Amino acid sequence: MNLAVLLFENFETLDVFGPVEVFGRLNHSYRIKFYSLHGGQIRNNHGITIITENLNDISEELDIFLIPGGIGTRTEVHNKLLIDKISSVVNTCKYVLTVCTGSALLAKTGVLDHRLATTNKRAFDWVMTNGSMVKWEKTARWMIDGKFYTSSGISAGIDMALSFIGDRHGIELAKQLAIEMEYTWSEDKNNDSFRAE
Amino acid sequence: MNLAVLLFENFETLDVFGPVEVFGRLNHSYRIKFYSLHGGQIRNNHGITIITENLNDISEELDIFLIPGGIGTRTEVHNKLLIDKISSVVNTCKYVLTVCTGSALLAKTGVLDHRLATTNKRAFDWVMTNGSMVKWEKTARWMIDGKFYTSSGISAGIDMALSFIGDRHGIELAKQLAIEMEYTWSEDKNNDSFRAE
Repeated sequence: MNLAVLLFENFETLDVFGPVEVFGRLNHSYRIKFYSLHGGQIRNNHGITIITENLNDISEELDIFLIPGGIGTRTEVHNKLLIDKISSVVNTCKYVLTVCTGSALLAKTGVLDHRLATTNKRAFDWVMTNGSMVKWEKTARWMIDGKFYTSSGISAGIDMALSFIGDRHGIELAKQLAIEMEYTWSEDKNNDSFRAE
Repeated sequence: MNLAVLLFENFETLDVFGPVEVFGRLNHSYRIKFYSLHGGQIRNNHGITIITENLNDISEELDIFLIPGGIGTRTEVHNKLLIDKISSVVNTCKYVLTVCTGSALLAKTGVLDHRLATTNKRAFDWVMTNGSMVKWEKTARWMIDGKFYTSSGISAGIDMALSFIGDRHGIELAKQLAIEMEYTWSEDKNNDSFRAE
């Protein structure tokens, strides 16, 4: 399966690289590529500079589109060119996964309208302003509605990625990956100790 | 504080970006830079290409040197130029943190001889061959001996990084970071559910 990761300036480090570690461990089955609106170098506020391809160059059929959060989403929700591009990629790919405030970018396209979704509980009120028709769930670690997987903050992206693997390949493989990563997997998407009050 | 992250081909994704997320959240206090033996682009088997500086260009006084693991360490333990360079950086910096098989690279320099250290339990036997004088501990999530913090596999690097923050700035800040990351922190370095039997 082809997995495209969307990057933009000031993406959140672990929103990206948590799920990438999960899928990367299955790199015989998942081919990961990093994209941005114009391609080239993308930096974040943790000192990372990573090379990306141009979103226009997604030629092959895309299976998974991963949209991270981060402080950069506060700017990018106003980037019409990016939102339009996200919209067109989302329309043709099989699954869309968002972590943290990545759901704000996805909500902005309108595809989450009338769907169940969640996001980082510490940014909940702001994210909701980007999708007033979305059925935002305040007490989930992640939500699944059709092809859309939306997770709460940062580490919840790892939990969701493991759950995605479990849904596709069986829970035993997901558990095995968690053990290999020495990661304490929160398996239950409804058990959210970080929920908004 | 200045934090230098060592990268090499086929570093393990989360060994690097787990701790980077932790320190990056305190980027008013910690300045993170990425280095490799020759500088330039470094790739790994999860599709990441990241820009690094040359290890020779560490000009300022270094506070923390982070050495990740990954399948690439199997090659790099034989890279005398890199091991010598690690040795010289380690000698002058205040703290050295290793994740997973990064401890094999550090052990190869000899600085861990007669010191307590740990590593990924799934690669334990191989790592031990790179430092026969090291007091390897099989049942720790991470170990601290002097300025050396060595952790077990992947997510244990996040636990260790939070512990390092706790040691420097108090445990309340470490707990706060874990909550912000929605991360279930394994606070106790001796509580290792992934230990070698």
